[in-house]
Amino acid sequence: MRTEGLSINLATVRAQWTLREAVEGCRRHGIGAIDPWRDQVAAAGLSEAVRCVKDNGMRVTGYCRGGMFPGPDATARRSAIDDNKRAVDEAAALGAECLVLVVGGLAAGSRDLAAARAMVTDGIAQILPHARACQIPLAIEPLHPMYAADRACVNTLRQALDICDALGDGVGVAVDTYHVWWDPELETQIARAGRRILAHHICDWLVPTRDLLNDRGMMGDGVIDFRRIRAWIEAAGYTGPQEVEIFSAADWWTKDPDEVLRICIERYNQVC
Amino acid sequence: MRTEGLSINLATVRAQWTLREAVEGCRRHGIGAIDPWRDQVAAAGLSEAVRCVKDNGMRVTGYCRGGMFPGPDATARRSAIDDNKRAVDEAAALGAECLVLVVGGLAAGSRDLAAARAMVTDGIAQILPHARACQIPLAIEPLHPMYAADRACVNTLRQALDICDALGDGVGVAVDTYHVWWDPELETQIARAGRRILAHHICDWLVPTRDLLNDRGMMGDGVIDFRRIRAWIEAAGYTGPQEVEIFSAADWWTKDPDEVLRICIERYNQVC
Repeated sequence: MRTEGLSINLATVRAQWTLREAVEGCRRHGIGAIDPWRDQVAAAGLSEAVRCVKDNGMRVTGYCRGGMFPGPDATARRSAIDDNKRAVDEAAALGAECLVLVVGGLAAGSRDLAAARAMVTDGIAQILPHARACQIPLAIEPLHPMYAADRACVNTLRQALDICDALGDGVGVAVDTYHVWWDPELETQIARAGRRILAHHICDWLVPTRDLLNDRGMMGDGVIDFRRIRAWIEAAGYTGPQEVEIFSAADWWTKDPDEVLRICIERYNQVC
Repeated sequence: MRTEGLSINLATVRAQWTLREAVEGCRRHGIGAIDPWRDQVAAAGLSEAVRCVKDNGMRVTGYCRGGMFPGPDATARRSAIDDNKRAVDEAAALGAECLVLVVGGLAAGSRDLAAARAMVTDGIAQILPHARACQIPLAIEPLHPMYAADRACVNTLRQALDICDALGDGVGVAVDTYHVWWDPELETQIARAGRRILAHHICDWLVPTRDLLNDRGMMGDGVIDFRRIRAWIEAAGYTGPQEVEIFSAADWWTKDPDEVLRICIERYNQVC
């Protein structure tokens, strides 16, 4: 079955495999692209991670993740900005095509969503010169509104693109079906995004969803119409891979990871 | 403490009290307005429910709920429309100020969200003449996007108002803080809504939220800035009550309902 155009976000097998095991697993299944997470890279060590990626000829379609900009005071926000600059450096070392930003929710102890959103735009603006210098595009990932409080206060593609409009070159968006499938404006905002789409994540919405964070579905097991969304994304000019990213504590994280990859490939061919 | 301007959606004490117990409980606490649910009214019998409301001099700020329009075939959709007309009749008998619409999610077996949304607009259009004749305004309640698949495919105030624009007089919106607090367009869409705001529900977003449906919070226990949202709603011209609606299987539904009402009043005064 076809594996071209498929990337595996390594969160999908994070419970079972180390970075090297995951990279080698992908290669064994004929998958040529990955998106690793910072904790996986940190556990391996950056130079070993770089070696592992290069040895296996892997394309790195993104690096997860920067973000988490809001903080209760200037020190916390400065610390987040410094950490994001390090994430840019790591992304550059890995040859990643973008740094995915999960921007962060409300600052600790705050109910001021507008303030959190302002901190996000400010934080991205502050790391942008460094990201541009390193040639690492920043991909703002709008997260589902159910994460507005604690993970990301950028919750629609419209909102992410408004930030892109404000900040100019070097910032785009990551479109994850799980987070945006419900949006009545999805088609029009994808068209608006155009070439600013830097990543296309795929993951299904299960009914019922038993946990807000870690009960995401394999494509085909839920209610998302992947082909319709893909057609919109391709019409906007995106030519990159579809990247499978599934958080699934009760299901996919408990399975044989080779079986997980086999089914990712199967569903990618069948429904995506 | 002040109870003027406070209404209790009877879902808040549904696990503990019958309709009559709830109405008498509200009266005992000095609360003069309620919003009952259809199953509560059905359990009491409509004529007894009407008597209970009148005997206690209760204002009925809404009736929950109509909706659930999408269906896999014309028969199912027709059945939903007939049922909604009966809900309008019940709302009229109770003297309710509006019928709240939870519009329904995807049709059974479907992944076509656009089709579900079209069925919703069509369904509301079909019950609207009857609702107008009965002088029962229809209040479209945008539900949080996490319910798009299985409860309501109207997920933003903008989307609800677009339907109102299309259908004309007799349709407005119910603004529930729990469902809309995250929306980057909330302030502007509330201003756009103006006098079409027919109900203002209050309920807090907890961090963490342990269940997608029944882990909603008492005002003050979560992250919502109630006063800010209330100011926007009042600026739009809404003069009705704030209606407490909390689904809480693990917490408020297990408590002494007199204590629940006491705390509703307390928090209404402290944070709303």
